[in-house]
Amino acid sequence: MDVKPDVFPFTAIVGQDTMKKGLLLNLVDPRLGGVLIRGEKGTAKSTAVRALADLMPGLQVVNLPVSATEDRVVGTLDIEHAIREGQKRFEPGLLAAAHGNILYVDEINLLDDAIVDALLDAAAMGVNTVEREGVSHSHPARFILIGTMNPEEGELRPQLLDRFALSVEVAGERDVACRMEVVKRRLAFDKDPEEFRRRFYQEQFTLLERILQARERLAQLEPSEQLLEWIAKVGIRLEVDGHRADITLMKTSMALAALNERTQVLPQDLVEAALMVMPHRMRKKPFEDNELGVERIREMLGDLLQEASNAF
Amino acid sequence: MDVKPDVFPFTAIVGQDTMKKGLLLNLVDPRLGGVLIRGEKGTAKSTAVRALADLMPGLQVVNLPVSATEDRVVGTLDIEHAIREGQKRFEPGLLAAAHGNILYVDEINLLDDAIVDALLDAAAMGVNTVEREGVSHSHPARFILIGTMNPEEGELRPQLLDRFALSVEVAGERDVACRMEVVKRRLAFDKDPEEFRRRFYQEQFTLLERILQARERLAQLEPSEQLLEWIAKVGIRLEVDGHRADITLMKTSMALAALNERTQVLPQDLVEAALMVMPHRMRKKPFEDNELGVERIREMLGDLLQEASNAF
Amino acid sequence: MDVKPDVFPFTAIVGQDTMKKGLLLNLVDPRLGGVLIRGEKGTAKSTAVRALADLMPGLQVVNLPVSATEDRVVGTLDIEHAIREGQKRFEPGLLAAAHGNILYVDEINLLDDAIVDALLDAAAMGVNTVEREGVSHSHPARFILIGTMNPEEGELRPQLLDRFALSVEVAGERDVACRMEVVKRRLAFDKDPEEFRRRFYQEQFTLLERILQARERLAQLEPSEQLLEWIAKVGIRLEVDGHRADITLMKTSMALAALNERTQVLPQDLVEAALMVMPHRMRKKPFEDNELGVERIREMLGDLLQEASNAF
Amino acid sequence: MDVKPDVFPFTAIVGQDTMKKGLLLNLVDPRLGGVLIRGEKGTAKSTAVRALADLMPGLQVVNLPVSATEDRVVGTLDIEHAIREGQKRFEPGLLAAAHGNILYVDEINLLDDAIVDALLDAAAMGVNTVEREGVSHSHPARFILIGTMNPEEGELRPQLLDRFALSVEVAGERDVACRMEVVKRRLAFDKDPEEFRRRFYQEQFTLLERILQARERLAQLEPSEQLLEWIAKVGIRLEVDGHRADITLMKTSMALAALNERTQVLPQDLVEAALMVMPHRMRKKPFEDNELGVERIREMLGDLLQEASNAF
Amino acid sequence: MDVKPDVFPFTAIVGQDTMKKGLLLNLVDPRLGGVLIRGEKGTAKSTAVRALADLMPGLQVVNLPVSATEDRVVGTLDIEHAIREGQKRFEPGLLAAAHGNILYVDEINLLDDAIVDALLDAAAMGVNTVEREGVSHSHPARFILIGTMNPEEGELRPQLLDRFALSVEVAGERDVACRMEVVKRRLAFDKDPEEFRRRFYQEQFTLLERILQARERLAQLEPSEQLLEWIAKVGIRLEVDGHRADITLMKTSMALAALNERTQVLPQDLVEAALMVMPHRMRKKPFEDNELGVERIREMLGDLLQEASNAF
Amino acid sequence: MDVKPDVFPFTAIVGQDTMKKGLLLNLVDPRLGGVLIRGEKGTAKSTAVRALADLMPGLQVVNLPVSATEDRVVGTLDIEHAIREGQKRFEPGLLAAAHGNILYVDEINLLDDAIVDALLDAAAMGVNTVEREGVSHSHPARFILIGTMNPEEGELRPQLLDRFALSVEVAGERDVACRMEVVKRRLAFDKDPEEFRRRFYQEQFTLLERILQARERLAQLEPSEQLLEWIAKVGIRLEVDGHRADITLMKTSMALAALNERTQVLPQDLVEAALMVMPHRMRKKPFEDNELGVERIREMLGDLLQEASNAF
Repeated sequence: MDVKPDVFPFTAIVGQDTMKKGLLLNLVDPRLGGVLIRGEKGTAKSTAVRALADLMPGLQVVNLPVSATEDRVVGTLDIEHAIREGQKRFEPGLLAAAHGNILYVDEINLLDDAIVDALLDAAAMGVNTVEREGVSHSHPARFILIGTMNPEEGELRPQLLDRFALSVEVAGERDVACRMEVVKRRLAFDKDPEEFRRRFYQEQFTLLERILQARERLAQLEPSEQLLEWIAKVGIRLEVDGHRADITLMKTSMALAALNERTQVLPQDLVEAALMVMPHRMRKKPFEDNELGVERIREMLGDLLQEASNAF
Repeated sequence: MDVKPDVFPFTAIVGQDTMKKGLLLNLVDPRLGGVLIRGEKGTAKSTAVRALADLMPGLQVVNLPVSATEDRVVGTLDIEHAIREGQKRFEPGLLAAAHGNILYVDEINLLDDAIVDALLDAAAMGVNTVEREGVSHSHPARFILIGTMNPEEGELRPQLLDRFALSVEVAGERDVACRMEVVKRRLAFDKDPEEFRRRFYQEQFTLLERILQARERLAQLEPSEQLLEWIAKVGIRLEVDGHRADITLMKTSMALAALNERTQVLPQDLVEAALMVMPHRMRKKPFEDNELGVERIREMLGDLLQEASNAF
Repeated sequence: MDVKPDVFPFTAIVGQDTMKKGLLLNLVDPRLGGVLIRGEKGTAKSTAVRALADLMPGLQVVNLPVSATEDRVVGTLDIEHAIREGQKRFEPGLLAAAHGNILYVDEINLLDDAIVDALLDAAAMGVNTVEREGVSHSHPARFILIGTMNPEEGELRPQLLDRFALSVEVAGERDVACRMEVVKRRLAFDKDPEEFRRRFYQEQFTLLERILQARERLAQLEPSEQLLEWIAKVGIRLEVDGHRADITLMKTSMALAALNERTQVLPQDLVEAALMVMPHRMRKKPFEDNELGVERIREMLGDLLQEASNAF
Repeated sequence: MDVKPDVFPFTAIVGQDTMKKGLLLNLVDPRLGGVLIRGEKGTAKSTAVRALADLMPGLQVVNLPVSATEDRVVGTLDIEHAIREGQKRFEPGLLAAAHGNILYVDEINLLDDAIVDALLDAAAMGVNTVEREGVSHSHPARFILIGTMNPEEGELRPQLLDRFALSVEVAGERDVACRMEVVKRRLAFDKDPEEFRRRFYQEQFTLLERILQARERLAQLEPSEQLLEWIAKVGIRLEVDGHRADITLMKTSMALAALNERTQVLPQDLVEAALMVMPHRMRKKPFEDNELGVERIREMLGDLLQEASNAF
Repeated sequence: MDVKPDVFPFTAIVGQDTMKKGLLLNLVDPRLGGVLIRGEKGTAKSTAVRALADLMPGLQVVNLPVSATEDRVVGTLDIEHAIREGQKRFEPGLLAAAHGNILYVDEINLLDDAIVDALLDAAAMGVNTVEREGVSHSHPARFILIGTMNPEEGELRPQLLDRFALSVEVAGERDVACRMEVVKRRLAFDKDPEEFRRRFYQEQFTLLERILQARERLAQLEPSEQLLEWIAKVGIRLEVDGHRADITLMKTSMALAALNERTQVLPQDLVEAALMVMPHRMRKKPFEDNELGVERIREMLGDLLQEASNAF
Repeated sequence: MDVKPDVFPFTAIVGQDTMKKGLLLNLVDPRLGGVLIRGEKGTAKSTAVRALADLMPGLQVVNLPVSATEDRVVGTLDIEHAIREGQKRFEPGLLAAAHGNILYVDEINLLDDAIVDALLDAAAMGVNTVEREGVSHSHPARFILIGTMNPEEGELRPQLLDRFALSVEVAGERDVACRMEVVKRRLAFDKDPEEFRRRFYQEQFTLLERILQARERLAQLEPSEQLLEWIAKVGIRLEVDGHRADITLMKTSMALAALNERTQVLPQDLVEAALMVMPHRMRKKPFEDNELGVERIREMLGDLLQEASNAF
């Protein structure tokens, strides 16, 4: 007997706008590079990821548990069979299942190093290659990587941090009405999931349409010279060296513009993108206190934005 | 030859009212989310859990020993059989056995991390999924999670702490008459368990009826706006961010009202619930000294309660 | 070829009265809960345990070596056989062998945690349960647990300490005549074990009779209200919280009275019992220096005893 | 299904001249001894290595993942087959695949010590020997060893550092125009890899010709006495003791001259070579801060260069 | 092909009188309890042990290497065979081979704890018992335990120290003539072992006769009351608590008297024995500096000896 | 396909006189006891060892890699075969292959302890014995043990240090002409190994003859009383206790005299030998700074040498 739990609708999630934006951008541009969600226990991170996949027909969440073995992640080559029968037999792993889907790693900061390495290799190449005793097999492995972590339980090493296009912080709501609404919706969903999902059917459909239209707009968008220059300056000013940051900033700005139903990237898109792209790439205690990091970015980008708004 | 030890009756346990209340609330609302019992050695924690299951016909305690392997907890998929015979064969583990029952983990703070992860996954989804080489099997796994720990031997990590709806402290009695009664009853039980159980038969039956009626009342209870607002304020004031805390506070208040034979949640239900729901979720040395934590909650909730009692 | 070493007679052991009393009490009441013998190397701890079993016809010492695996301790279930033949096959372990006997763990403080857990489970329930892949087997496992440890090599964790009903300290004799006698007897025994055993035959027989009569007296003994009250007060005064301490104090006092050929528990029985029951359960460096601990108990119980002697 | 990702053209890499020079020198003299690329995350190290191999027809990059087992690296001897069939069967490993190719180790500083040892043995001898139970097999294993590391994640041990002929630092560009160009090219490549590769076809071909001509020139080059003397003096002045440093300095200077289309080694070739050959071989915090190291070399070589320019 | 190395004759060992005495005493009384030889590298400890066995026809040295597994030490029970064939099959281990021989452990302080435990069990009982899945096998295992250790590489734990009857220190000779003789003999032996052995044939034979006669005298020796009293006083004065020390002191004094061709134990025998029996059993940094320890014993025993010499 | 790399001629090694002398002495007296070569990376240690073996026809270098398992080093006994077929089958290991050859351990300070133990046992006895389940096999294992280590990566433990007869330091040359010659020769060898070897054919042959004649002279050499006395005094003065040091000093002096074409040992032979035999055996930071150690020896031996030169 196989059992599927009901999914809380994405549009029924109260608040948490940055997290939701970060997730949606990865639907608009599935090649964007994933998102790392940082936050304390109990802040609905897993709920949101499952809700995201539920939004898009045919999109699945492949869960990579912290206790998974390397074989289970990359798959296994049956060498004995190859020798005996003269043909390869490959048992696909989670990376194969994740192709074209979301790969979800809860508490990614607790993941074993060997798994992290395998994950990074696949994420970098879009291809997963398994080799054993001279026999090798490869298959495409393009997926949206979504990780969550509770910073109280340890940080990610820089190499892995950099692989995430975006990183967003989630925190509990401080607004009474919001909190009341969160509880109400949860209780309603727990009581009768199907009825609750019906309630949000229209909103879900509207959001799906918006994503699909943003995808089309994005295909038409061309980065202007102006934008490229601003991006280069942002990277230099924030002392973020790798070019992966620049490219991700570019792509995120474009996806944001597309999601915001624009056919041109505005300076505010750039700033909004920087707040998700840059904090985890800045040197010197990048995440020690995220609000400080975000604040520093806002400040540093202040006059750039000023200049930009004149320029555009 | 299989042997079953006799069980001490729940109603024969002297004192320890908070622990007993925490356990009973999980019978009233089996979806509440379990309870963590914290206390020194020798304070009858295991006795109480076995007594709780004994109260409710058909309810069993599945014991998850600290030394259990992951396979034994989640079950195993026989892949070779699947390949050879073309059909899955799944050997169910403790999580399967725990479905619809109590899953009991003594000294949960000594549990291996991989097991904790598997436990958390199942507890979060109500479903246990085992995957191996592309084959997967899932089965429902809804259980009442009861853990015990001796804080002298190390704390739980925050991620796991948060999964417990309630946490209660047990301590030895300081009252002479109480202690005398504890010893008397234990000696009597050890001498002739069956006779002792007969002595408490009526009390056990009455308690069972009370639980069953509370379940019915709970199904009718609707949270008022007023209550929702108070809950949001409690969370904000105690700086507990996750919405899981709010929802648990809601559910616990309602289960308490139902157990107290009311059809409406009163402010004192809310405060009593907060004392079991919030201490282990508060930041900054949450349990360093539980009595202090509880004291702080009482104080902080003081005027809320004042206001509330005016409002209701 | 199987070889059995000769056993030194219990009644030939010179001095070490507390250790000998602690051991004998467990013969008077085999459900008492064992004894932990603490002392330096070379103080005849193992000799005394083997001598104890030798005293009682049919009683055996099952030795649990520090290097034993968990399988060897709890036994193993042959699952393959169960599947193939449709019936369980259980290979019993040391806990099965220990049923109705003495389970002896030399250097128990060096035991592996997983084994300790298995031991605690069985000791708590009087039943050993082995589960594997959904098949389970249980058998009774009531045994007298006797552990020894050299405190120079590390302490036991509180959870395990509390499982021992009694704990006694052994130390070398400071009396010249005693030491001379120890050496003389050992040399005589080494020279001709059988002759030496014949020499103590009568004393051994007398002691056995005394134990058997004490067992009968114990079955008749009823704890008075007075005694229960005193026990509760002792626990509160020494700040020992768990009720297991109280019950053990009760049982030990009663066994002592029975061994001392009385049909009523006297205050001095209670104090003598407390000196074996309480030191390892007291908080704050319980054993840092045992003589200090014992001294503190004597002092604290001073006026209780005074009062008691008036009361009885 | 096997999948090959498209490769970014070497000549399309913007900036990073030292890294590119270090890589090209290993194509000019494949016996030079490899290169270690040090730099932060996201600085296109892997991209450059794949691009290098793509430049030269038939040259492949063999990837040695950090999680590879020793068997997989050195290959395995099937002893059972040898005994049964009377002939050796060797399953070649990554070192066999790497023969005549590039062996690429990303994050080499995280590699297991046993693998490092196997790697060093093969690199030193140009031969990989596998022995098991008296049977042995050896095969040539000459490869260009290219390692990358992020110094934030730990240093290499001296023994392995010394095996790399060259070491180069990569850092992010600080020039706005450069950064803009990096992003433009990357976006263009991601959009249509084949079109992008066509754009650089001519440049790629020209570079390949230059390398092939440099190889021919190098075969004719003879080190002058003058050059040998300067090299000895450089080693002594920088207190680099091993003769491997001197020989590598010699070979690198010659390869540089050849690449620069000269038939004679000039003092500036020597200095440029020293900046890649010496920093990781200097004692006292050799890499603590690379720019300082390079600066120190420049300074120390200052008057040598002065003298040299007079001499040549 | 099996190869036996030639053995250096015991009587050809120059100096090291204490070590030689300690070894010989174990031949006089094979139940004495072994000897621990402490000393720096290169002080001929192994040579002396092999020479000791060579002295006595039929006596063998069984070497227990530091890397031995537990199975190899205690032997293995073939359970499968027992089940299949209905009879036990036991593969004896090193302890079986050591029965009636010398068990030699070089660098015993580096031995694995599990092996140490197995060793202690056998040494204590004179019997080795192997149990597996309810089947058990035991065989006699009485051996002369000789261990060596280099105190520079770590101490033994007290439990194991106490099992050695004697402990002796070896140090390099400071006398020129002695050292010259050592080298001369070693060179002569290396040149022509058989010739060298012939040279010492007579001395070896004489020593053997002396040992055999001492064994006979020892069988007649009875400890006087006087001696027992002195031994008790020595133990009390040196604060050595365990009675094993007293008994060993008794036996060693008697073996010494026998070896010294006396039929009565003299005070000087007692003092000489104490210098080998007591230092490693004294509390407070027993071996921190052996010469100090020995000095302290001499001092403390000073007036005892005075008194004794009057008494005898 | 099996591949043998070409070997650099021993006589073509520039400088490094102490290391070369240490190696040659082990060819003159293969029972001398090996040599430990200490030095930084890149100082041609491995090259020299391979060159040494190449010098002597039929002598092979058996390489013991740091990652070798114990089975591979000592060989394995096939017990199953023994039981089934009634006869032993032994798969020889590296120690068997090393018999009569050089056993070479690069980076010996990184070797696993279990392997070190096996190595020490064989080195001490000249015999390798493998035992398994009561079956044993032994074979001669006399080899020249040559180890190298980079002191930057950790020291050897004293027990192993002492097993090396000699220890020598290698360091880079500080002489310009020397360094130039080193590079020239290496380049010439790399270009055409066979031509290069032809160039040194005569020198190689002459050195081989010198070694063979030294062997003959050594067989005739008798140590004088005078020499023995001086050796004893050296050991006492340097506070090196073990007699292994004295014997090695004796043998090394004699081998040196023989290599230097003398039939008598001169005081300078003794001093030169002491500089290779004593530093690694001296207490108190023996190698902390080798030049200091060597200096101390020279100083201490100063007047001994003075006296000696008068005496001889």
